[in-house]
Parts: sequence; C-alpha cells; structure tokens
Amino acid sequence: AGDAAAGKAKAAVCAACHGVDGIAVIPGYPNLKGQNEQYLVNALKAYKNKERTGGMAMVMQPQASMLNDTDIANVAAYFAQMK
Amino acid sequence: AGDAAAGKAKAAVCAACHGVDGIAVIPGYPNLKGQNEQYLVNALKAYKNKERTGGMAMVMQPQASMLNDTDIANVAAYFAQMK
Repeated sequence: AGDAAAGKAKAAVCAACHGVDGIAVIPGYPNLKGQNEQYLVNALKAYKNKERTGGMAMVMQPQASMLNDTDIANVAAYFAQMK
Repeated sequence: AGDAAAGKAKAAVCAACHGVDGIAVIPGYPNLKGQNEQYLVNALKAYKNKERTGGMAMVMQPQASMLNDTDIANVAAYFAQMK
C-alpha cells in the first residue's frame, strides 16, 4: 500500500478536476474519494502505458506520465483513504 | 439522464464484481456507488469501443458490448443515484 501523506503532496494537481475532497467538480470526471486503491493504481498505469484511451484519456495520459510507480501508489493511497 | 429503475434490471450482472451496493467486492475493481453519471457513460462507451484497454478491460469490453446506448445511460443512472 502507498503512503497517503506523500500522495497528498503529489495530488494537488488532481484537485482541479477531481475536487479537493475527491468529488469531481466537472461532469464526466470520476469521483475518487474512497475509491478502491488497487483500482486507482491500475487506472493510472493504464493511462501511463497508453492502454486506456477514450473518455478524458487525452488529459489523463500526460498527467500519469509524470508519475513514477511510487507516486502512483501514493496518490492511490491518498484518494482511497478519503472518507 | 438515464432511467435508474431500468438500469437496475440491466445491472444485476455488475454486482458480481462491483457489489450489490456498488462497493467492489474484489480488489482492483472500482466502487461505482454514487459515481459521476456522465463518467460512467464515458467509461462504458470507451470499453465498448475498445478504446479503454489495460487493467480489467478484457473483462469489461465484452460486458459493455452487450449494452446499447440506452442501456448504458440507464446503468450509469442506477449507480450514480446510489447513496
């Protein structure tokens, strides 16, 4: 499992669309609050690997490309632990 | 917006992995309860169009392929309205 505190520092940019509380502020964007941690890891890796296209992938692929595996684990832990 | 009641009837199969209450029962699967409705529509269409690969897309592509646009709207409405 990732380090949620470290993830919070990396996740500031995420809040612009997914909300500071993990509730998306734009229609068509997913809420991330309390989401399954392993799912979030899988989703970010699928964007980074350009396996996940369609939807808003044109936005998320470049975001995910800036995260290494540790960052991805930490950001996933941060959103997963939100109540 | 879709018809949540009609979506419930189509969503029985979803519960096997995503839970009868929309909370995933398998690690690596996303919770769907209360998720953004338009996001759910986008996600199902991206699977159906095979734009979304990676993660568990090998499971979700065939599931989404069995849904028409009305089904997708209804299933999305069903999970989005879950409290």
